Amino acid sequence: MKKLINDPANVVAETLSGFQAAHADLVTVHFDPDYVVRADAPVKGKVGLVSGGGSGHEPLHAGYVGKGMLDAAVPGAVFTSPTPDPIFEATKAVDGGAGVLHIVKNYTGDVLNFETAAEMADMEGITVKTIVVNDDVAVEDSTWTAGRRGVAGTVLVEKIAGAAADRGDDLDAVLAVAEKVNSKVRSMGVALSACTVPHAGKPSFDLSDDEIEIGIGIHGEPGRHRIPMAPADSITDQLVDPILADLKPAAGTEVLLFVNGMGGTPEAELYIVYNHARARLEAAGLKVTRSLVGNYITSLEMQGCSVTVLALDDELTALWDAPVLTPAFRRGV
Amino acid sequence: MKKLINDPANVVAETLSGFQAAHADLVTVHFDPDYVVRADAPVKGKVGLVSGGGSGHEPLHAGYVGKGMLDAAVPGAVFTSPTPDPIFEATKAVDGGAGVLHIVKNYTGDVLNFETAAEMADMEGITVKTIVVNDDVAVEDSTWTAGRRGVAGTVLVEKIAGAAADRGDDLDAVLAVAEKVNSKVRSMGVALSACTVPHAGKPSFDLSDDEIEIGIGIHGEPGRHRIPMAPADSITDQLVDPILADLKPAAGTEVLLFVNGMGGTPEAELYIVYNHARARLEAAGLKVTRSLVGNYITSLEMQGCSVTVLALDDELTALWDAPVLTPAFRRGV
Repeated sequence: MKKLINDPANVVAETLSGFQAAHADLVTVHFDPDYVVRADAPVKGKVGLVSGGGSGHEPLHAGYVGKGMLDAAVPGAVFTSPTPDPIFEATKAVDGGAGVLHIVKNYTGDVLNFETAAEMADMEGITVKTIVVNDDVAVEDSTWTAGRRGVAGTVLVEKIAGAAADRGDDLDAVLAVAEKVNSKVRSMGVALSACTVPHAGKPSFDLSDDEIEIGIGIHGEPGRHRIPMAPADSITDQLVDPILADLKPAAGTEVLLFVNGMGGTPEAELYIVYNHARARLEAAGLKVTRSLVGNYITSLEMQGCSVTVLALDDELTALWDAPVLTPAFRRGV
Repeated sequence: MKKLINDPANVVAETLSGFQAAHADLVTVHFDPDYVVRADAPVKGKVGLVSGGGSGHEPLHAGYVGKGMLDAAVPGAVFTSPTPDPIFEATKAVDGGAGVLHIVKNYTGDVLNFETAAEMADMEGITVKTIVVNDDVAVEDSTWTAGRRGVAGTVLVEKIAGAAADRGDDLDAVLAVAEKVNSKVRSMGVALSACTVPHAGKPSFDLSDDEIEIGIGIHGEPGRHRIPMAPADSITDQLVDPILADLKPAAGTEVLLFVNGMGGTPEAELYIVYNHARARLEAAGLKVTRSLVGNYITSLEMQGCSVTVLALDDELTALWDAPVLTPAFRRGV
């Protein structure tokens, strides 16, 4: 294992320490328990947005803390859910009196721990509602999940619900926007290589030199099947087609196309995938009106990508375009 | 070789096609010869900035085309200098009557081809001046270079000179700012793994499972030496200390600290390196007042990073903070 780390036990703490120092203008990191809040938290009268989950998916979630997106992020150990305590502390820290929305990727540990934290907050008089994101069409149930997994669609939920909170929507309205995004977004990923969790010290699964895994999870959980290495266009079809079969967007629908790198993929390859995915969507009669290409939800140094399609309407487009100012995502502020 | 590509011969063209489609609001891509200009080029009365070089370092350079940074980028084949023709065409396309600055990383092929393009432009009455960036302290001369190599400092030259042009500086003044940045910036990198050029099909060099290369070049050119894998803090010291020995900043100097990922490095590891590099700079009496952490100049899927230190003054800080709106770098627009 070659990684730019010191002690595997200190990976998250040292990452957060560097993150705090680099972005002190935008965020404040609390240690022990670990959570990240926007520097001006709590924002009085605004719905607070809290997300979190295992580390190793950076910039998700701490990179999205700031105006127009999340109020707090709660990082667990690498690929390990945070416990209820830091989620509860983060929830308290960002409650501005209008309630708090928990944005949870659908993994069993995350769902349970956010639920417990919400109950703890409720006992202190903080209203919490929860959106569980489950956009991955690859598999129903999995090693870590009941139902579908929450993957790259989470970034879009965080951006768009964050914009809704920023414009002053109340908790029910922000939840409704988040639910709308979750109902209209689908994703599927592919791995060309595995990744290595620092404290494990060896790759999380084995892939031979000439095979790839279609439908991979963001922790390397099994996907749909393994196939021999293939041209990018063929791989892209095998990601886009299941998304379209599941989402069933009407011809003429405006969509956001998001090609996400898993952490170890050259940016050029993401644009090659984007190029063909876009052509495929257009051939299906869809209009790609918004785009996102880059490393937004990663799996350590895994090579591969995911494709995400969000069916837009005027409200979602306007919220997508709204200003955002976070360490990893900024526009128009 | 597992890559998300189709034919290796089409990697750059398909990347540019996807890039154009994803960022049509910001850039216009010209094909055959290939170059990328900002969508509103030429900007009348503004000095035009043109950079370029071999592909494989994305988001450099095309990702930095837009308001407040580059007017054009000229991508060659992967790790191969662009020929004079597209550089000349890009130069013509962005000349707004105030002359054009070529920003060239110090590699023999780039320097020669930009020089030829500048002569071609001169014959058409376009004044071109050139800054050759050579910030890499690792080696004097190298397999591809006479003198020092141009690496991550190029991103800072492009941002800061771009801001100077954006505020209306004339060509000599923009050149002077670029030269000031180049005189005050130093970088050094480390590779944990090699990268594979698509048309080569095999790694550009061999590194054993327990060794790393200190002072690596962005094309995998040899650095200073190979050492056994070590903790991140020790590796970071071996990047920061040669930078400080060469830059010799006075105690109390304000600096920008830039930790750049080579393409295959998890973001968390970059923050771990940043964390220790910052402590090292502060221990040397410097004040880290600006920061940049992420994949800004890559080497395909290479694992590793570089550290860059820029000694700031009030002018450079203000230009660094100025608005910028490009596909890969945006702030305050």
